[in-house]
Amino acid sequence: MTYQLNETHDAALSSWVKSANEAGSDFPIQNLPFAVFRRAGSSEAFRGGVAIGDQIVDLAALGDALAGADPAAREAAALGSRDSLNALMAAGPQAWSALRLSLSRLLRSDAPARPDLMVAQADAEFTVPASIGDYTDFYTSIHHATAVGKLFRPDNPLLPNYKWVPIGYHGRSSTIGVSGQAFHRPRGQTCGATETEPVFGPAKRMDFELEVGIFVGGGNAAGEPIAVGDAEAHVFGLCLLNDWSARDLQAWEYQPLGPFLSKNFATTISPWIVTTEALAPYRTAWQRDAADPQPLPYLDYPALRGSGAFDIELEVLLQTETMRREGQAPASLATSNFRHSYWTVAQLVAHHTVTGCALRPGDLLGSGTQSGPEAAEAGSLLELSAGGKQPLSLPNGEQRVFLEDGDRVVLRGRAARPGLPRIGFGEASGTLLAAR
Amino acid sequence: MTYQLNETHDAALSSWVKSANEAGSDFPIQNLPFAVFRRAGSSEAFRGGVAIGDQIVDLAALGDALAGADPAAREAAALGSRDSLNALMAAGPQAWSALRLSLSRLLRSDAPARPDLMVAQADAEFTVPASIGDYTDFYTSIHHATAVGKLFRPDNPLLPNYKWVPIGYHGRSSTIGVSGQAFHRPRGQTCGATETEPVFGPAKRMDFELEVGIFVGGGNAAGEPIAVGDAEAHVFGLCLLNDWSARDLQAWEYQPLGPFLSKNFATTISPWIVTTEALAPYRTAWQRDAADPQPLPYLDYPALRGSGAFDIELEVLLQTETMRREGQAPASLATSNFRHSYWTVAQLVAHHTVTGCALRPGDLLGSGTQSGPEAAEAGSLLELSAGGKQPLSLPNGEQRVFLEDGDRVVLRGRAARPGLPRIGFGEASGTLLAAR
Repeated sequence: MTYQLNETHDAALSSWVKSANEAGSDFPIQNLPFAVFRRAGSSEAFRGGVAIGDQIVDLAALGDALAGADPAAREAAALGSRDSLNALMAAGPQAWSALRLSLSRLLRSDAPARPDLMVAQADAEFTVPASIGDYTDFYTSIHHATAVGKLFRPDNPLLPNYKWVPIGYHGRSSTIGVSGQAFHRPRGQTCGATETEPVFGPAKRMDFELEVGIFVGGGNAAGEPIAVGDAEAHVFGLCLLNDWSARDLQAWEYQPLGPFLSKNFATTISPWIVTTEALAPYRTAWQRDAADPQPLPYLDYPALRGSGAFDIELEVLLQTETMRREGQAPASLATSNFRHSYWTVAQLVAHHTVTGCALRPGDLLGSGTQSGPEAAEAGSLLELSAGGKQPLSLPNGEQRVFLEDGDRVVLRGRAARPGLPRIGFGEASGTLLAAR
Repeated sequence: MTYQLNETHDAALSSWVKSANEAGSDFPIQNLPFAVFRRAGSSEAFRGGVAIGDQIVDLAALGDALAGADPAAREAAALGSRDSLNALMAAGPQAWSALRLSLSRLLRSDAPARPDLMVAQADAEFTVPASIGDYTDFYTSIHHATAVGKLFRPDNPLLPNYKWVPIGYHGRSSTIGVSGQAFHRPRGQTCGATETEPVFGPAKRMDFELEVGIFVGGGNAAGEPIAVGDAEAHVFGLCLLNDWSARDLQAWEYQPLGPFLSKNFATTISPWIVTTEALAPYRTAWQRDAADPQPLPYLDYPALRGSGAFDIELEVLLQTETMRREGQAPASLATSNFRHSYWTVAQLVAHHTVTGCALRPGDLLGSGTQSGPEAAEAGSLLELSAGGKQPLSLPNGEQRVFLEDGDRVVLRGRAARPGLPRIGFGEASGTLLAAR
């Protein structure tokens, strides 16, 4: 399912929430992403909300505001007012679409203003928007896989399976946090390349990974794979995801069963999930080199080559403790784009389930580090610092090879097209604290 | 925490449930394992139960039966009557122990018989006993790691990290099923060693893995590691676990991030969880070769060398479709023992959390395939058939290298000591169906 453009995508729409109409806003009326929130510091129940400008539509406060709307929209709003979005995610594309249309109409400039339905984003705190049953992380950037492979195997960077298999592994769901997450530098075993015995202590090579998160909507029963052509109907939307990594722990532990402790301590996502329907105007062709193999039939589908990919600009920024103290904004380290992904979202879903594996509503898939083809488009410090050998200079003169205590990493994402409003993902920020 | 022996372990105890006193029973009054069940085919709510002989004590039916008991036991019984054991697991060792003591007293020969509290196991159906937030699989048998390593790297079977790091990886929780699970042979990509392009189709090298499952009781907050000396207080109990594996999918996909589709389609556990308190008399010394390194301090603790290990006999049996049709019982393929594990349960918990990773009540850890030192003690067909090269002969003349459609694999486990009753795990059985 690739969404058709409809009235909610109309570039001419504006909202009675004035801040939504400002050019720099991530949240114009064409976006309408979902989060779970409450008033900061309150003991209110968390509930679903939809971003509009600098405000949140409180789905639990809609009451009769959708009285004249499609009953499917009212039902979806009720599901969305719970303390996680799982029930709304399970309801499927028609429910999501009906709710989006009703909210779009409610918020348009020609509709009566309803400030009573709103909570200012500045007054809100967020939580992980779904109860995440399983979290899977993929490895879809061939540029990242090649760059990391070069560090370990200069002559043979890309393994033979890469161009055939959407490589992925299971991640840890218990430590997924929402933007604002702070965590302590993990301790663990590391072993230098020339050493024979490991040492135990705080990780020294702390890194981020610039990723896109994919929230599963309706799941599938065990034993019933999701066909690649149906896969997008099972996707609720996308978010930003930082797959924090302790590279020195990873190097020592990862053979033969993959990363474990090196990534189990924290994963940070944006509070906002941008729906695939909102992203419909920003689809783009999925591209491969002519020499690359065609996908096997279970990973091929009609829309793949025309609009299989998402054109989403991604950015990672760093704010050191010194910068924060001196009031300096986060500095950009790299930009990339989700369109570079070697595998599409639909292919990830189809591959994941082809064995009969069950996905459940609220399951999260990570795209893997989204490095682009250029060196400046690398989505991790491991790549940006050439394996820790070339320090990066920050605008204030500080240098980094890996993260230092107090560093705050900010991910941003946005989709833009000439003649269309820009829609954004807000941010996923997280802070590395000193080891305990 | 290693449980002290107490009156519930007394070998002289017997029960008014006569079947519990028979020599062959897995469930004498000294065992009292937990499951979640209901009457088969009914629409009753699932609830916790405790095995005694061929019966189940219905925790939701206790009513005033514990009226005179420790209030902690009554509270634990109430938590245990929900449709998953997570709340009881979260309650901690004192609650578990209080409930065990009360049930032991309720069921003893000198107590009044209360058949009204019972459901016959033959009349029950079971479900996964906890909502499993995250499932982690370890690799704790050095014999398995060496045997599998030899197939890939004859000169260097054991990787340098093995004797230092409790190797593990995240598994898939959505497809964990309870004994009786049946699943279709998965499809996926495979690539022969001499081929350059993969093919897609049903997996050909289907295997089981004979493992012990470890259910986490009380969890830990993110950022707060569980010290190895405290780790067992966070363990509710053990079960049997079959980590079904598609070896041909695994060989092609597993580099560089570990197993994914090759194990995401099904994992089968026993319905019964034997508590660590019940296993207290069956502890044994944790042993390593003199030449092996000592564990790093974060993996070392006073009780390790005296009673760190569990002496649990494990067995895997196979019943083919032909055997089933002809009324032949499952045939034993191998026996092993959990005491061979290179790492203890406490070490797994401490290692898992040392980075600050949060465990939650109901999380499941797999021990990894429990192969013993002898060839006949191998816990997988990959080992028993020497990588698929040496067929196994079954008693009825059939042969196997890997599993065939219709094969039912049964895991069993029991702990025994001279002068003590044998306590058992029931079984974890699962059936491989033809690919769809």
